[in-house]
Amino acid sequence: MKPQVSGVVSSKLRNDMLEVKFGDGTEGRLPFVWLRDNCQCPQCFSVEALGRKLLMDDLDVEVQPTEVEETMDGLMVKWSDGHQSEYSTNWLQNRSFTPTSRALHRERYALRREPWGAEHTMKNFDYNTLMSDDRVLLDWLLTMERKGSAMVKNAPKKDVAGPELIEHIAFVKQSHYGPHSPVINRPNSNNVAFTNAKLGLHNDLPAYEHMPGIIFIQCLAQHPGAGGESIVTDGLFAAEELRRKRPEDFKILSSTDMYFWDKGHANYSWEMPEFYKIAKFPVIKVNGNNEVVQIAVSNTTRDSHMDLPPQEVKKYYAAYKRFYIILSANAMTFKMEQGDMMTLDNVRCLHGRESYDADSQRHIETSYLDWDEARCRRRRLQEKFGCFI
Amino acid sequence: MKPQVSGVVSSKLRNDMLEVKFGDGTEGRLPFVWLRDNCQCPQCFSVEALGRKLLMDDLDVEVQPTEVEETMDGLMVKWSDGHQSEYSTNWLQNRSFTPTSRALHRERYALRREPWGAEHTMKNFDYNTLMSDDRVLLDWLLTMERKGSAMVKNAPKKDVAGPELIEHIAFVKQSHYGPHSPVINRPNSNNVAFTNAKLGLHNDLPAYEHMPGIIFIQCLAQHPGAGGESIVTDGLFAAEELRRKRPEDFKILSSTDMYFWDKGHANYSWEMPEFYKIAKFPVIKVNGNNEVVQIAVSNTTRDSHMDLPPQEVKKYYAAYKRFYIILSANAMTFKMEQGDMMTLDNVRCLHGRESYDADSQRHIETSYLDWDEARCRRRRLQEKFGCFI
Repeated sequence: MKPQVSGVVSSKLRNDMLEVKFGDGTEGRLPFVWLRDNCQCPQCFSVEALGRKLLMDDLDVEVQPTEVEETMDGLMVKWSDGHQSEYSTNWLQNRSFTPTSRALHRERYALRREPWGAEHTMKNFDYNTLMSDDRVLLDWLLTMERKGSAMVKNAPKKDVAGPELIEHIAFVKQSHYGPHSPVINRPNSNNVAFTNAKLGLHNDLPAYEHMPGIIFIQCLAQHPGAGGESIVTDGLFAAEELRRKRPEDFKILSSTDMYFWDKGHANYSWEMPEFYKIAKFPVIKVNGNNEVVQIAVSNTTRDSHMDLPPQEVKKYYAAYKRFYIILSANAMTFKMEQGDMMTLDNVRCLHGRESYDADSQRHIETSYLDWDEARCRRRRLQEKFGCFI
Repeated sequence: MKPQVSGVVSSKLRNDMLEVKFGDGTEGRLPFVWLRDNCQCPQCFSVEALGRKLLMDDLDVEVQPTEVEETMDGLMVKWSDGHQSEYSTNWLQNRSFTPTSRALHRERYALRREPWGAEHTMKNFDYNTLMSDDRVLLDWLLTMERKGSAMVKNAPKKDVAGPELIEHIAFVKQSHYGPHSPVINRPNSNNVAFTNAKLGLHNDLPAYEHMPGIIFIQCLAQHPGAGGESIVTDGLFAAEELRRKRPEDFKILSSTDMYFWDKGHANYSWEMPEFYKIAKFPVIKVNGNNEVVQIAVSNTTRDSHMDLPPQEVKKYYAAYKRFYIILSANAMTFKMEQGDMMTLDNVRCLHGRESYDADSQRHIETSYLDWDEARCRRRRLQEKFGCFI
């Protein structure tokens, strides 16, 4: 009887790597030290904790296989340190250092974001369905990661509706404004948002190094007539526009640290009695691959202190203003209704609002959820529904 | 009578800047657009919210002064956009773009860290004094920022002692392990830490993009006899050693993203029922000025997925191992006693522990506080005691 074509069908040692061919024809190059480091035996790895038990002290970077056996289940390797390891085909293929396996894990980590301009329409979700149907919750999580924005309809008229939805997902990211924060016109306000003034496009809380990942903006009461309209734009879209059209501006904004600050006193009992935050990073934050990972824009909390030589300041402002114009030119304007709860990727999308009458009963509540927790829930739901990419 | 030498004594317009001389002889070069942007009048700035009201839409980057008047209190400027601004001497001097004023704000933002090696002794603080004496609390905050480590003695024997101290400072940074987490040997554990195994040097929760800033490690019961000793090292010190001695290794570790993951199920009711975290960043994270801002080392949660071409993997491991050897060579070893609570800068210092007997009653509790909140409290206390640098 012909053996099934599965497992590892051939392997060859070359350049500190095992070159393997799997039964389905795919190949992989597996570095020796990586294979030994990731031995899946109970001595090296805990299946209960899903964590590596092998200590760094005990890993020999020069470790070599002394014997390799291709099995129907995968690979067996005997090592120069006397240890013996077994690896399943599936485990190896998932981690075979091929462009495909690397790309798959990149998506498991974080989904590819899809930039959008002024023509964008937010996808609608129903509050109660999000609270009761995990498939819809997963759809919201996928939408938020890809589009950075979604509208939740029919939120209950209570100030903790945002936190309750967040607690259903994971838990609230607290700030010095409390677990949720009423955006209303109030006297002696500790934040310009808590007045009736127009608010320029901004991300929330850039005075935090750990800016909140997702903002939940719930409308408990809207201002009737003109005023109070929301303005929303995709900072990722604008940043890529800037990079394309004004690469020098992009360079300045992504390499120059700005301070943001937020100082004040409590308006409500659950707030900290006094706060004085300062954070410092570029307005456009990129990672080592020059990918945009965070936008931080806020005219309200942009610090008057600047850590620049004075001769570079005007050039900085000019770049910043041009970026702001792109942000504005690609924004959408709409008016939230009572029961609406807008959800935005706060390190990507910016929001603002038009001014409204001082004696309005307009009442917005904001609360936050971190991306660490949102992505965590997305992965768990993808596993639950067997739809992991 | 001779006028007092104060205020601004002279000013000159040059290259889009106002060159000013203050009464005390110091000078400053103040860019026009920056001055206009930071007008302190009630129309442009809210003294209640301490935030800028001037919108970016309304700022003209090419704005010019039409009239400048030096006053005993500071400066009066009339602008080409018709606006008029006044600035106090003190406000201007604080922001005069000189190396001194820039350095002062840098320290207000974050204190200079002082690296240390194996000879280091942690400063001792008393739990009850921290809870009752804000001057001592400020000393602890300053110590934590500079040294990244301190020992709190006489913590009460209850599992929420850490969270209570944190709530006295600001509020707890929650993770999927809950607001506090018992480190004990338990069956079917969701983390290798919750076993009796030796733990290599690590930072806590690198599977979070937003790694907790400060870890509170409280000893409720220590293992008698040999075992359970703590090992602590300064990652900043080791990273600078690596940069000096092996610049190529430093380059690899600071420019190559690593995945960290943490997957599991709840051990306790207040934990999330299931979690699946993945974060990605270099083991040594540097900012735009190539300063080390975060260390992320954890053999337990280092992901077996690596987003590298296979031919770069061995070189990476070799650099990582050499870094780990420096971390270990400069570590201190000691044994915590009941009532001790070690506090560490978790994005800088690493900790580990020796193994201990499986049936030990050893009980450690960990909880977290973010640097955003700790630095906030430090600034507020510095203001309170008039000792702002």
